[in-house]
Amino acid sequence: MIATQYKGNKNFAVIDKKIEEPKDDEVRIKVAYSGVCGTDVHIYHGMMDKRVSIPQTIGHEMSGIIDAVGKNVTNFKTGEKVVVRPLDDRKVKPSDKGFNHICEDLKFIGIDSPGSMQQYWNVPAFVLHNLKPETDLKLAALIEPLSVATHDVRRSGLVKGETAVVLGGGPIGMLVAMVAKEVGAQVIISEVNPTRIKMAKDLGFDAVNPTEVDLVAYVKSKTEDKRADVVFEVAGVQPALDIMCEVAGIRGRILMVAIHGDKKPVDLFKFFWKELSLIGARVYEKEDYEKSIELITENKLPFKAMITDVQPLSKIQQVFENIDKNPSGMKVLMDCSL
Amino acid sequence: MIATQYKGNKNFAVIDKKIEEPKDDEVRIKVAYSGVCGTDVHIYHGMMDKRVSIPQTIGHEMSGIIDAVGKNVTNFKTGEKVVVRPLDDRKVKPSDKGFNHICEDLKFIGIDSPGSMQQYWNVPAFVLHNLKPETDLKLAALIEPLSVATHDVRRSGLVKGETAVVLGGGPIGMLVAMVAKEVGAQVIISEVNPTRIKMAKDLGFDAVNPTEVDLVAYVKSKTEDKRADVVFEVAGVQPALDIMCEVAGIRGRILMVAIHGDKKPVDLFKFFWKELSLIGARVYEKEDYEKSIELITENKLPFKAMITDVQPLSKIQQVFENIDKNPSGMKVLMDCSL
Repeated sequence: MIATQYKGNKNFAVIDKKIEEPKDDEVRIKVAYSGVCGTDVHIYHGMMDKRVSIPQTIGHEMSGIIDAVGKNVTNFKTGEKVVVRPLDDRKVKPSDKGFNHICEDLKFIGIDSPGSMQQYWNVPAFVLHNLKPETDLKLAALIEPLSVATHDVRRSGLVKGETAVVLGGGPIGMLVAMVAKEVGAQVIISEVNPTRIKMAKDLGFDAVNPTEVDLVAYVKSKTEDKRADVVFEVAGVQPALDIMCEVAGIRGRILMVAIHGDKKPVDLFKFFWKELSLIGARVYEKEDYEKSIELITENKLPFKAMITDVQPLSKIQQVFENIDKNPSGMKVLMDCSL
Repeated sequence: MIATQYKGNKNFAVIDKKIEEPKDDEVRIKVAYSGVCGTDVHIYHGMMDKRVSIPQTIGHEMSGIIDAVGKNVTNFKTGEKVVVRPLDDRKVKPSDKGFNHICEDLKFIGIDSPGSMQQYWNVPAFVLHNLKPETDLKLAALIEPLSVATHDVRRSGLVKGETAVVLGGGPIGMLVAMVAKEVGAQVIISEVNPTRIKMAKDLGFDAVNPTEVDLVAYVKSKTEDKRADVVFEVAGVQPALDIMCEVAGIRGRILMVAIHGDKKPVDLFKFFWKELSLIGARVYEKEDYEKSIELITENKLPFKAMITDVQPLSKIQQVFENIDKNPSGMKVLMDCSL
């Protein structure tokens, strides 16, 4: 079979590899599609070399079909469509208080262990979620990032009739916006990239450029001065941190979705004054996957537009180089059958 | 009657003033006690000269007895013991979303209008809460700051069996600790001032100095590695902001009680990683006052120890000067009958 390997220093290898039998409690998946995540791009940039085991197959946004089942696996059968929830929580401890998805010793499959950017992939059965026979496998590769969005929206407590402002219209921001709209909220996307603004508008979203429009005044004009009930900080930049406290109304909830590596200045006075909440949200739980599988299978939202390119595994090097050259694109899928 | 007036430049006057009749919808209170709040000290320091109307009678932590009722006041009678919830929310707007206690145009009585550090005080009847005939009026002067604490604890969702760490053992921190203990939580106070640590210990609290003890290791040792379920940031200093994200366990809730005038560096990564929440809490709502009145009337908690000095109104200048000289004291009450 074909497998790809991150070799360090912005290099991928495409190798021929023996198909392995699944061990006890494992299944072998014939991978259909594997999406490129921002984390994969970080790995490619060498920013996670301490965590990955070079050479390593990466990838965790995937869909596939069960190809073989190992001993003890009774609840999954060959031929079934599946996705992987890539959280290995086997080292969970009582001090994790039952929050297995973010347990202290969590291993992330595709980062801390081999990933899906190969034709066949062996994983422990407990990470699998079944799809319906009719679920589109291309769209199903979006279930993992969509579950980040369903988790974020669930953590926010967003309800119908509220207003959500999404700071950052990249892949996760756009999926958050879709889920928020599906909940019945008014959604406003704040994004600086003109290509992404156009795409958001084409998908029917209210999208503005905060460097051209006074975002706070705009949101006030759309909410009878109430401002946002929920703000999703998905941009990861200081201007977003500055405006999140301004654009949030009284008792507004701000979801911290972006990863800020360093300590950043935050207007804590606004948290006190308006009784704001800042709510951290990371990965997803089982019910977020179930919700995302339902959304993808029903295909009510414009998920198809999220997939801006599909390339064969053999093109992995070019794919990552192109992402660097064209940061406006949304989601690139690797077709793992090729 | 005797009234005190803040004159600016760290100066108070004690003047003789005519007792005024209550206007329509107002009552006149014979003030019993009026506590000195941190905000009053800020005013004395000249830090709120833009907000107060010099010369102004300040004060808002009080207890008293209704002395006269104005026209239209039907639900309060002369001779009843009362406290004032000093929030004038008459300019509330729909964009305040029903959160009247922090409405955008809130006026704080005792800051934005005359306060309680005088013998008789006229206030609109809607700010009154009735006490029981048996409620101790000295302790009742603690109801306002205690309501800050009951509000903070209620906003935190703290429940029996959880662990709360209180960063800062001043008057509000100590009251938060008492309310948290009353809820049934394990409480650990972090404080640097030895006098306050001793007082906390004398009151039966677990109190540590984070400059001498590794607070995170200490809290882990007391929680089977779970760390804190709730952290109350009442200290208002950078080391507290740094440690709050460390000492909070997975899905920990951090209450932002302190007032941070400037933007401060915050470890947002920890919010993402451990799915922490930061919850702003300001003043109180009606139900917080009701809870505090119940606690004070039942007198189950060591409230009496909070009152470290009682002085006549005529000594106001010395009282504020002494607070500056002795920052270890807890609550000073002005006896407004003298």
